Amino acid sequence: MYRLYHYPLSPFSRKVRLVLAEKRVEFDLQEVRYWEPEPDMLRRNPAGKIPVLRTQNGFYAESAAICEYLEDLHPDPPLMPQSIEKRYEVRRLNGWFDDKFYREVTEKLLGERVFRKVQGTGYPVSENVKSGLKAIKLHLDYMAELLDQRRWLAGGEMSLADFTAAAHLSCLDYISDVDWNRSATVKDWYAKIKSRPAFRKILADQVPGFQPPPHYADLDF
Amino acid sequence: MYRLYHYPLSPFSRKVRLVLAEKRVEFDLQEVRYWEPEPDMLRRNPAGKIPVLRTQNGFYAESAAICEYLEDLHPDPPLMPQSIEKRYEVRRLNGWFDDKFYREVTEKLLGERVFRKVQGTGYPVSENVKSGLKAIKLHLDYMAELLDQRRWLAGGEMSLADFTAAAHLSCLDYISDVDWNRSATVKDWYAKIKSRPAFRKILADQVPGFQPPPHYADLDF
Repeated sequence: MYRLYHYPLSPFSRKVRLVLAEKRVEFDLQEVRYWEPEPDMLRRNPAGKIPVLRTQNGFYAESAAICEYLEDLHPDPPLMPQSIEKRYEVRRLNGWFDDKFYREVTEKLLGERVFRKVQGTGYPVSENVKSGLKAIKLHLDYMAELLDQRRWLAGGEMSLADFTAAAHLSCLDYISDVDWNRSATVKDWYAKIKSRPAFRKILADQVPGFQPPPHYADLDF
Repeated sequence: MYRLYHYPLSPFSRKVRLVLAEKRVEFDLQEVRYWEPEPDMLRRNPAGKIPVLRTQNGFYAESAAICEYLEDLHPDPPLMPQSIEKRYEVRRLNGWFDDKFYREVTEKLLGERVFRKVQGTGYPVSENVKSGLKAIKLHLDYMAELLDQRRWLAGGEMSLADFTAAAHLSCLDYISDVDWNRSATVKDWYAKIKSRPAFRKILADQVPGFQPPPHYADLDF
């Protein structure tokens, strides 16, 4: 059985958890305090980052690479489209969320409000929080723009891009930083993906010291 | 003909330039001062980033997504291996350089020494430069560790991972921040990739106000 070394509020870990669960691959979870690198962790991934997937063949790191690997290894159900143009669009959006959204929003909000406390690196820097709260509005608007023309983020079919986006948003929703009233289209999209069986375990996550809002696990939020 | 919107010392732009040239795809270059976003640029890529590739079908953004797209569209010569395990390793290393190496080294050295001046955001923060100079040593050691066991970074064949790494290192070499004496293995690898025809234009890059060292364009450095 696979094992995923993860942290509950890591969006990159959540992305891999969602992909594994959607593909009905059996795995167990081992929580890692990745900011306290220890030899075992560096042996699994010299980059010192999570998530890391352990299979019978060894250790796999870098969440985007893991997801493509899982797609190659467990193609059913597919989370990458067949057409070259559509595959590009999925990968573009993966990059959008894992890089741009992460830097502008996730890191600014989750980083300041949760990771500083958990990792003991001081109080939230309010300037960063303010900048994250401003940026998430623009990102939700961009998602709404896409979803006004498409059933799912990258096109007509649900794809890895939806799970990448949902992984980030679900972490921010845990700390009440997503204004679902901003766009009915985005809210509908999140309700659809949130109600998938793959999402169940993520909605049950608990991080000591941080209580999610009641709507977090509610499918009719 | 394709057009690439780029900036000469952007490692992400260089990666796409190298892939296009290696695949002998014809393209011209348009330099973009991407830190001064203007409507045209945001129309090409709402993320406001470079590189952006224009083809007859439209605009393509996110360098990792562009490279996979080019691999799908122009498979010959291949820069991705056939085997699932090896493809994973290429993507892991792409992530290593575009994320970890970029944050720990490229951003710290190139960002402080070049982009601050070019973009007019003040003097280099010496703490960042110091941290970048320390980190690049560890990264060169990690590359040496890989290259002691492999002909190319991801395995027996040259791949996208080599171009990703070389794109970052070539930018840092332009500002004399790579100590090639640290590892003969890494130097040999760089000499091999630097001597490919695809590298020629990159070795001819000139950024006003920044003179590359004589060894930068020298194939026998």
